[in-house]
Amino acid sequence: MTVLSTLTLGGSSIVLRRACVQDLPRIVELLADDQLGAGREEPANPDRVDPYVGAFHAIDADTAQLLVVAVDGQHVVATMQLSFIPGLARRAALRAQIEAVRIAASHRSRGLGSAMLSWAIEEARHRGCALVQLTTDKTRCDARRFYQRLGFVASHEGLKLPL
Amino acid sequence: MTVLSTLTLGGSSIVLRRACVQDLPRIVELLADDQLGAGREEPANPDRVDPYVGAFHAIDADTAQLLVVAVDGQHVVATMQLSFIPGLARRAALRAQIEAVRIAASHRSRGLGSAMLSWAIEEARHRGCALVQLTTDKTRCDARRFYQRLGFVASHEGLKLPL
Repeated sequence: MTVLSTLTLGGSSIVLRRACVQDLPRIVELLADDQLGAGREEPANPDRVDPYVGAFHAIDADTAQLLVVAVDGQHVVATMQLSFIPGLARRAALRAQIEAVRIAASHRSRGLGSAMLSWAIEEARHRGCALVQLTTDKTRCDARRFYQRLGFVASHEGLKLPL
Repeated sequence: MTVLSTLTLGGSSIVLRRACVQDLPRIVELLADDQLGAGREEPANPDRVDPYVGAFHAIDADTAQLLVVAVDGQHVVATMQLSFIPGLARRAALRAQIEAVRIAASHRSRGLGSAMLSWAIEEARHRGCALVQLTTDKTRCDARRFYQRLGFVASHEGLKLPL
């Protein structure tokens, strides 16, 4: 089990660690417990072959991907995925991209998201990234303000094409 | 040399192929020949160690990255980078992300960008992606309309944090 950081929030310790396959059902639950995610997910089952398990192993095997969970006691209470993307633009900037940030309802509005993102930004710096980027659905107004408070600039349109 | 596709545009053939290190100075020229890129790039030199060369090899060695050039005769006239990103959200959707699309001034408004993007979308489908995504600077109004014509939906805010 790879502990990445220990966050102290309101007197309790939250451990950030690399996700393992046993976390998968809970991570998918977090992805689904969301205004937009609700209709998009189905339960994951690590004991059978399902697309989540395949994707987990693809992420886990790739050093450019880092799937993070936040654990309070024995409970996974948040998740996010970091992708490190090499590129030529901006003087060959390595980018860190953050996707699928979810905080359990029980742990919202307590600074956990902010602490997780601050850790992610430090990790990006440590890996030599010149830029951190993410997109957030335009209907999530709170999320945009949250990222702006952390210093992100909403300079881009995020365009998606489902296949 | 890996040819990816041959596009026919206005009677002439444009070859899409995987970029090689010798293309690097020209690719960086294309990145810099742009209203936003102009101040962000410097010439690349494949004969010495420079950050572009390191980034090129990182991209080239990674099967999840594909740096594409479009060649007219002997001339590289356009470039784009595709990244294939595994994830858990949206039922473990593999995403294709497109970055650093640039068309030489001599070859703009002739359908080359559209043909390149259509190829990229087909390649994403072929690799099993459920989503193609990209961001474009909000000051590039033409670019947003271009992507919308291809079916992309500007549903997201794109946030960036330079480090």
